[in-house]
Amino acid sequence: MTIKDIQNYLGQFFDSVELEGSAERVISGPAKIETAQQGQVSFVANEKYVKYLSTTEASLIIVHPSVSLDASNSATSFLKVSDPYTAFVFLLKKFALPRTVAAKGIARTAAIGEGVTLGEGVSIGEYAVIGDRCSIGRNTVIGAHTVLLHDVAVGEDTILFPSVTCYDSTIIGSRVVIHSGSVIGADGFGFAPQSDGSYVKIPQMGIVEIGDDVEIGANATLDRATMGSTLIGRGAKIDNLVQIAHNCRIGEDTVIAAQAGISGSVTIGRQCIIGGQAGFAGHLELADGIKVAAQAGISKSFLQPGISLRGYPAQPMRDQLKYEAMLRNLGAMKAKLDRLEAEMQELNMK
Amino acid sequence: MTIKDIQNYLGQFFDSVELEGSAERVISGPAKIETAQQGQVSFVANEKYVKYLSTTEASLIIVHPSVSLDASNSATSFLKVSDPYTAFVFLLKKFALPRTVAAKGIARTAAIGEGVTLGEGVSIGEYAVIGDRCSIGRNTVIGAHTVLLHDVAVGEDTILFPSVTCYDSTIIGSRVVIHSGSVIGADGFGFAPQSDGSYVKIPQMGIVEIGDDVEIGANATLDRATMGSTLIGRGAKIDNLVQIAHNCRIGEDTVIAAQAGISGSVTIGRQCIIGGQAGFAGHLELADGIKVAAQAGISKSFLQPGISLRGYPAQPMRDQLKYEAMLRNLGAMKAKLDRLEAEMQELNMK
Amino acid sequence: MTIKDIQNYLGQFFDSVELEGSAERVISGPAKIETAQQGQVSFVANEKYVKYLSTTEASLIIVHPSVSLDASNSATSFLKVSDPYTAFVFLLKKFALPRTVAAKGIARTAAIGEGVTLGEGVSIGEYAVIGDRCSIGRNTVIGAHTVLLHDVAVGEDTILFPSVTCYDSTIIGSRVVIHSGSVIGADGFGFAPQSDGSYVKIPQMGIVEIGDDVEIGANATLDRATMGSTLIGRGAKIDNLVQIAHNCRIGEDTVIAAQAGISGSVTIGRQCIIGGQAGFAGHLELADGIKVAAQAGISKSFLQPGISLRGYPAQPMRDQLKYEAMLRNLGAMKAKLDRLEAEMQELNMK
Repeated sequence: MTIKDIQNYLGQFFDSVELEGSAERVISGPAKIETAQQGQVSFVANEKYVKYLSTTEASLIIVHPSVSLDASNSATSFLKVSDPYTAFVFLLKKFALPRTVAAKGIARTAAIGEGVTLGEGVSIGEYAVIGDRCSIGRNTVIGAHTVLLHDVAVGEDTILFPSVTCYDSTIIGSRVVIHSGSVIGADGFGFAPQSDGSYVKIPQMGIVEIGDDVEIGANATLDRATMGSTLIGRGAKIDNLVQIAHNCRIGEDTVIAAQAGISGSVTIGRQCIIGGQAGFAGHLELADGIKVAAQAGISKSFLQPGISLRGYPAQPMRDQLKYEAMLRNLGAMKAKLDRLEAEMQELNMK
Repeated sequence: MTIKDIQNYLGQFFDSVELEGSAERVISGPAKIETAQQGQVSFVANEKYVKYLSTTEASLIIVHPSVSLDASNSATSFLKVSDPYTAFVFLLKKFALPRTVAAKGIARTAAIGEGVTLGEGVSIGEYAVIGDRCSIGRNTVIGAHTVLLHDVAVGEDTILFPSVTCYDSTIIGSRVVIHSGSVIGADGFGFAPQSDGSYVKIPQMGIVEIGDDVEIGANATLDRATMGSTLIGRGAKIDNLVQIAHNCRIGEDTVIAAQAGISGSVTIGRQCIIGGQAGFAGHLELADGIKVAAQAGISKSFLQPGISLRGYPAQPMRDQLKYEAMLRNLGAMKAKLDRLEAEMQELNMK
Repeated sequence: MTIKDIQNYLGQFFDSVELEGSAERVISGPAKIETAQQGQVSFVANEKYVKYLSTTEASLIIVHPSVSLDASNSATSFLKVSDPYTAFVFLLKKFALPRTVAAKGIARTAAIGEGVTLGEGVSIGEYAVIGDRCSIGRNTVIGAHTVLLHDVAVGEDTILFPSVTCYDSTIIGSRVVIHSGSVIGADGFGFAPQSDGSYVKIPQMGIVEIGDDVEIGANATLDRATMGSTLIGRGAKIDNLVQIAHNCRIGEDTVIAAQAGISGSVTIGRQCIIGGQAGFAGHLELADGIKVAAQAGISKSFLQPGISLRGYPAQPMRDQLKYEAMLRNLGAMKAKLDRLEAEMQELNMK
C-alpha cells in the first residue's frame, strides 16, 4: 500500500487529508513512533510525542494540521487530518490480518446437539460443544472448546474465542466479541438464609441477554437473572475479570474496566465509564454518562447524568476533591491547633 | 398447577397458608411483581412493593398476613404466609425446569482414566477428562470439558458445570455445585526468596477439601495447601472470581461475595458474611458470625464473634462509623479552627 | 531416605549441615511441625514455633544453629543450617512426587495443526488444540484442553496446566508454569470513542512475551499489546486472577499477588512486590525493588528504587504512616479544638 493509497483510504473518513512529502513510498505496516522503522506508518496525537517527529525513521506520520513540521526530514511524509488518533485506528484496522479463531466450517470434532440452526458461513472450532436447539447466525465464529448449553441464541458476525462458556438460554447479539474464559449465564448468587444459619439456594431461572456490538474481555462473569434477564446494552464494552451479578442492566455504549464488580440488580445508564476495580452495592442506579473512578465504592444511586464519582463511599468529584484536599491539609490544621493551644496557655497564664 | 396445589405444597413448609380468593386458577410460573401477567404467581415481602398489589395482573400473590389487601381486585388470589420470600423461593424451586448440564450417562467422547470409580446414575459430558483413580459418587453430573486430574474424589448429587478444573487429589463433598471456569487445587503462591533476588518455587504438596452443600461461583480460584488441606466448610457459598489462597480454612455456612480475596493461611469462622472485593492479609483469623463490608481490608485477626467490620484497615463497625463521622465533620472542624484563630488574633491585639 | 541422606542432600546447598541425634532413621516425607508424625521431617524458622520442639513427634527437625535443643527428646534428630526455611523448601522439592499433568507423549485426541514443531519429550494432553505453526520445546507439558492459537512459541521444560488459552503469536519462555484458566494474549481493552458516544475497536496487533522461569496462577489475564509486546520479565511470579493490560512491562523477578490489576502501558521494575488487589492507573512507571501494599491505588509514577507504597492514592510508606497516624488522631484533635473553644468563650466573657 502506498502513501497515496492511505491518503485515499482516510479520505473516506475525513473531509481533508493533506499530504506533505512523497506519495509514492510503500508502507508495510503501523508502528509506535518511538520504534517505527523505514516503511512504517505512525502518528502523533499528543504533544509529548512531537519530539519524535525530527528523529523518527517512519516513512509516514499522521499528524494534526496544526503541528509544525521539520521540512528537512525528507525521508518522512506526513498526512494531516483533524483527528490523527482515530485516523491511525482506521489504519490499524486496514493493516490487521484476518484472525483465524477457528478454521472455516464445522470442525469434525465439534459436538453439535439436536435441533441446532447454523447460519451460512458459520465456523465452529475443535471440540466446541453446541447444545440442543441452539441457533448461530451468519458468519459467526465459535472458538475451539467453547461450550454452549441448550437453547443459546447467537447473532451474526459474532466471535466467541476459545473456551467461552454460555449457560442455557443465553441470548447474544450480532457483531459481539467474547474473549476466552468468560462465563455467561452462571447462576446468580442467591441464597435464602434459614433459621439454623444454613442457606437454601434460590433457583436462578432468568437468563443473560447481550446486545449487538458488545465486547466482553477474558475471564469475565455475567450471571443470569433470578427471573427475567441480566441485560448488557448494545455497544457496551466489558473488560477482563469483570463481575456482573444477576439482574443487572448495563446501558448502551457503557464501558466497564477490568476487575470492576457490579452487585445484583444494579442499573447503569448509557455511555457511562466505570473504572477498574470499582465496586457497586446492590439494587442501585446510575444515570447516563456517569464516570466512576478506579477503585471507587458506589454505595447509593446517583441520578444526575454526566457527573463524575470517586472515593469510598463515592461522591461527586467536586465534593470528593474538596474532601481529599481537606485530608491533605490535616497536618496544617494540626499545626495551627497546636499553635493556638500554646497561645491560649500563654493568655491563661497572664 | 392450581392455586390449591400451591397452597398444599407450601403447607409442607409453613404452619399456616391462608387463601384469599379463587383456589382454582391454574398457575403457569413465577414472575417479578412489576411484570407478572395473568396466570403467574409473585410475592410481596418488602413494603416498597406493596403499591403493586392494586395494579398487578398476577393471578396469585404470596403476602404476609399483616398486608391489607384490596378486596376489589378479584382477578388476583392471595396466599398468606409468615415468610413470603422463602415461600416464593420454594415455589421457584417447584417451577424450575430440570437443568441438563450433561446428558444422562457417560458421553462417548469423555476421556476416562484407569481405575476410575463411577457411582450409579453419574453423568459425564462431552470431552470431559477424568484422571486415573478418580471416584465420582451417585447421580453426580460432570459437565462437558470439565477436567479432573488424578485421584480426585467427588461425592454424590454434585454438579460440576462445564470447564471446571480440579487438580490432583482434590476432595469434593456431596450436593456441591461448582460453576464454570473455577479452578480448584492449583498451586499456592509460594516462593522462597533467594539472595540474588530470584525465587525458588515451594512445592505445593497439599490438597483442597470442599465440604458438602458448598456452592462455588464461576471463575473462582481455590489453591491447594502447601502441606495439609485448604478447607471449605460444609454449606459455604463462594461467589464468582473469589480467590482463596493456600491453607485457608473457611467455616461452615460462611458466604463470600464476588471478587473477595483471602490470603494464605487465613481462618474464617462459621456463618460469616464477607462482602464483595474485600481483601484479607495472610495468617489471620476471624471468629464465627463476623460480617465484613464490601471492599474492606482486613489486616489483623478479629476474635469476637458476630461483630461487623468495615474500612481499610477494617475496624469494628461502631469505631469505623465514629471515625467516618469525624471525617465527614472535617469541614466543620476547619471552620471552627479558623474562627478560633481569628478570635485569638483579636485577643492578642488587645 | 535416611537422615544421613538428607544431610548429604542439603550439603549441596549449605556450607554447614550439622547433625544432632541419630543419622539412621528413615524419613518418609515432610509435615507441618504442629502435625508431624514419627518418620516425618519438619522445620522451625520462626520463634513462635520453637515451643513445638519439645512436643513434636517428628523424627527430624531442621533448625537454625542458634536454637537451643532439648537433649532429652531422643526420638527426634536435628539438622542445623543457616536458613532452615529454604532448606525445608529444598526438602519439599526432594519429596514432591512427579506430577502428571499429562501422560507422556501426544494424546490421540490432541488436535495438532499444520507445520507444528514439537521438541523431544513433549507431552500433550487429551483434547488439547495446537494451532498451525506452533513450536513447543523439549520436555514441555501441555495439559488437557489447553488451546494454543496459531504461531505460538513455547520454550523447554514449561508446564501449561489444563485449560490455558494462548492467543495467536504468544511467546512463552522455558521453565515457565501457567495454571489452569489463564488467558494469555487476549485483545487489549482499546476502543476509540466516536462523536455519537459509540466506540470503534482498536485492533490489538501486538503480542504477549513471557520470559523464562515465570509462574502465572489460575484464571489470570495477560492482554496482548496494541502494537509491540506486553512483556513479563524472566522469573516474575504472577498470582491468580491478576489482570495485566496491554503494553505493560513487568520486570524480572517481580511478584504480583492475587487480584492485582495493572492498567495499560504500565512499566514495573525488577524485583518489585505488588500486594493483592492493588490497582494501577495507566501509563505510569515503578522503579526497581518497589513494594506496593495490598489494595493500594497507584495513581502516578514512582521512580525511586526500593521504596514502599501504600494507601489510595498511594504514597511512600513514611508519608502514608504519618498521614494514617494523623487520621487516627482526629478524635484527639477534635477534643482539643472543643476545649480551646470553651476556653476562648470563657476569655471572651471576661
